[in-house]
Amino acid sequence: MSTETAPAAGAAEPVPTAVPRGPVTSASYSITVRLTSDGDPASIGRIATAVGTAGGAVTAIDVVDSRPDGLTIDVTCSAADAAHSEEMVAALRAVPGVKVRKVSDRTFLLHLGGKLEVASKVPLKTRDDLSMAYTPGVARVCLALADHPEDVRRLTIKGNTVAVVTDGSAVLGLGDIGPGAAMPVMEGKAALFKRFADIDAWPICLDTQDVDEIVRTVELIAPGFGGINLEDIAAPRCFEIEKRLRDKLDIPVFHDDQHGTAIVALAALKNALRVVDKQLADVKIVVAGGGAAGTAIVHLLLKAGAGQVLVWDREGILSPDDDRLGPAKRDLAERTNPAGLRGELPDALDGADVFIGVSAGNVLAVEDLARMASDAVVFPMANPTPEVDPVRARQHAAIVASGRSDLPNQINNVLAFPGVFRGLLDARATEISDGMLLAAADALAAVVKDDQLNANFIIPSVFDSAVTTAVAAAVADQARHEPGATVEVSGIETTKA
Amino acid sequence: MSTETAPAAGAAEPVPTAVPRGPVTSASYSITVRLTSDGDPASIGRIATAVGTAGGAVTAIDVVDSRPDGLTIDVTCSAADAAHSEEMVAALRAVPGVKVRKVSDRTFLLHLGGKLEVASKVPLKTRDDLSMAYTPGVARVCLALADHPEDVRRLTIKGNTVAVVTDGSAVLGLGDIGPGAAMPVMEGKAALFKRFADIDAWPICLDTQDVDEIVRTVELIAPGFGGINLEDIAAPRCFEIEKRLRDKLDIPVFHDDQHGTAIVALAALKNALRVVDKQLADVKIVVAGGGAAGTAIVHLLLKAGAGQVLVWDREGILSPDDDRLGPAKRDLAERTNPAGLRGELPDALDGADVFIGVSAGNVLAVEDLARMASDAVVFPMANPTPEVDPVRARQHAAIVASGRSDLPNQINNVLAFPGVFRGLLDARATEISDGMLLAAADALAAVVKDDQLNANFIIPSVFDSAVTTAVAAAVADQARHEPGATVEVSGIETTKA
Repeated sequence: MSTETAPAAGAAEPVPTAVPRGPVTSASYSITVRLTSDGDPASIGRIATAVGTAGGAVTAIDVVDSRPDGLTIDVTCSAADAAHSEEMVAALRAVPGVKVRKVSDRTFLLHLGGKLEVASKVPLKTRDDLSMAYTPGVARVCLALADHPEDVRRLTIKGNTVAVVTDGSAVLGLGDIGPGAAMPVMEGKAALFKRFADIDAWPICLDTQDVDEIVRTVELIAPGFGGINLEDIAAPRCFEIEKRLRDKLDIPVFHDDQHGTAIVALAALKNALRVVDKQLADVKIVVAGGGAAGTAIVHLLLKAGAGQVLVWDREGILSPDDDRLGPAKRDLAERTNPAGLRGELPDALDGADVFIGVSAGNVLAVEDLARMASDAVVFPMANPTPEVDPVRARQHAAIVASGRSDLPNQINNVLAFPGVFRGLLDARATEISDGMLLAAADALAAVVKDDQLNANFIIPSVFDSAVTTAVAAAVADQARHEPGATVEVSGIETTKA
Repeated sequence: MSTETAPAAGAAEPVPTAVPRGPVTSASYSITVRLTSDGDPASIGRIATAVGTAGGAVTAIDVVDSRPDGLTIDVTCSAADAAHSEEMVAALRAVPGVKVRKVSDRTFLLHLGGKLEVASKVPLKTRDDLSMAYTPGVARVCLALADHPEDVRRLTIKGNTVAVVTDGSAVLGLGDIGPGAAMPVMEGKAALFKRFADIDAWPICLDTQDVDEIVRTVELIAPGFGGINLEDIAAPRCFEIEKRLRDKLDIPVFHDDQHGTAIVALAALKNALRVVDKQLADVKIVVAGGGAAGTAIVHLLLKAGAGQVLVWDREGILSPDDDRLGPAKRDLAERTNPAGLRGELPDALDGADVFIGVSAGNVLAVEDLARMASDAVVFPMANPTPEVDPVRARQHAAIVASGRSDLPNQINNVLAFPGVFRGLLDARATEISDGMLLAAADALAAVVKDDQLNANFIIPSVFDSAVTTAVAAAVADQARHEPGATVEVSGIETTKA
């Protein structure tokens, strides 16, 4: 998933409540330091103390070698960021009797050689194996498929395969870093597809940002894939690419930054409203961010029956009579703000029940939340820095959810896209509809049972194995009930009575 | 690998020595028949006899269930073709006391769900795992790659990945069956890449046969791949696609039907000439087939120092003054037949030392081989039916090699492409040169040691693990010695002292 990359111009002045870099350490910044110490038995204690004093967390100490004159030790510790890890190394160097030999960055080491591999599902040990999986046996399968193209999903990998397609233009919060530098994200996404839904996904990183070329390329490579997952393509280009591909292809096209985010946000909101006992049709919702995620969230909220939605972006509250808006944002304004209300984000929040942020970090002061209605629901979802500090937001909000993994209620697309595609592939879906997205959100929300639901638990953990199963079943069921949304395979004979 | 798909018009009249369908059975036509028999202990013997009498071969008998009133048995047997397997089932039905319950086609069963899957090389069990392989940790790797694009090969799958690209226009000997029906071959190819060279290959089946579109699409998806293997694209289109991609891309582009076939044919010829004690520069060589494979074989033979080569195709012996020829075949004629010799295939064979066939089945009568010089070398390589029966060809030839896996000297592209790409990827090659193809052929030939070499063993087995190692080392060594053929990666720090 990506956050919106454009900074919100409406928040150009320094925001007084900006969140300072906290002492929160992360495995993503963890390092392993190999060091030698003299024979003093107290040295391990001093090492751990040095890391702790520098604000780091020791996660492992492995003794690599022990000799009479000293020890060789690998110390693994988490840091808050790159500068912090340098501070920890400096602290270790200062410990008496300790020599730092090598510092390894665990995240970079993990990426050496890439994160995916291809495996053969069939044995290739003997000549007979080769003659069935390749020539001459494979020719019979090819001929059967030439006669029955509808069976390609059944007799090839197409039935379980998704292309993860990007142009590298809006990667995470990093912006336009290009197709090669985007690869680690797309590989990670493919790894998540496998881990959470047993789907075989492959990264396709395109060396163009031209809409026509992207559409045509995806169309041309589509025969070998059962679905297309668009990823980290900048708005508004992503809307046109998605729409044109949906018109052309007979496989589902999903843009995770839009649809995945919208599903998870809607599911979290539904459960939050269960907690505060309000109805979606009645609440006033403010969405910050009019890019890919914001547009999709608004669309799905309206489809789900939301009654009042306002969108704020760098131009202010999106209004149909604001002639600075491009066509995509003007359309959004017309669907949400027919009265033409103007103003900044704090104005939009007056009396609002719900705030959903997919814009940029620190665009909102904690005090502004006091303008909201009682039992306010606040989802500052911008990554890596939320729109407002989620911890301090609790002063004014009944329920807070964010993208932060170290706080309750993490809103994470991993809760949606694996199950959605599992369902689409299981049903042999040829398209994806609003009905399927709504079914996914309902199923995801329903994973949290009534007796579990509370203000700190409105969304399940990504490691809850019930999530993918529930989402997949709901999407497949919906797909099978929509006329023309799935394809039947024929019965090329593999066995007969 | 594909054979030339166009039938040779020069062989329009029935060839009297056409090879009859022999009793050769193949696992690629094997079936598993589930049957029940009464309690008679002799029934298993009668079952085996029935299969044998019908010309089949029993490869396995598994008792699935044994009860007082009888046995349930799975009988697996190889047939020569589909009709033959029907005959075997009929023979089994006729055995007294036996009832056939179900017939399974093992090759189709093997293809259910496809032959490849994607695996994650990194653990994704904990939140910390996710934070290193995906957000937020992955962002640091992306930023480093944006600054050092040359390291994409080192920190992503690009360094070990090959795209197997086809337009489905010349698949095996089946012709233009389209991209979906071509998938089983491309999956099989990818499985062979993994099995023989630990390379991660992915099928890309394109829904176009337009040269411009194919070139542009491959160019656009190239950022994520370390090499391009073109496969089963019809001639002469394949020549232009390959040439243009080589000019545009900074990764090697290999067309297996051309270069793979040429490497293996040259290696086999070198060893055959060692056996009959003739020199490549002196022998007269006739190549049947002026398509992708034939053109590449001729090119590599000339680069290797062959002195006399004639090419025969459906138009007859290719001659520069034959105005029926297209530009590709005219070029071939100019390079091989400056004297403008005309005639049919038997004429070309007068006094020839070597015949290499990559044209179509049964274009040659065994008797025609009598026109060749003494100690003739005959490689009828057309698949699935050779140009002349390889068994009977031995009447007139000192050495025979073909694509048949049930005869000595099988010429199989699996001997070349895995090692070639292993070497290219290991050396971080940006292109592939004639020098590398020649090095691959030399290394492949040298796998057969002097004390092993004889008329029935001029080429190693595909299961000889020394093959990939030797070919890869030779290609990588050559690549590292050619100026500009490889790229150096920088040192994004993963560890420091």
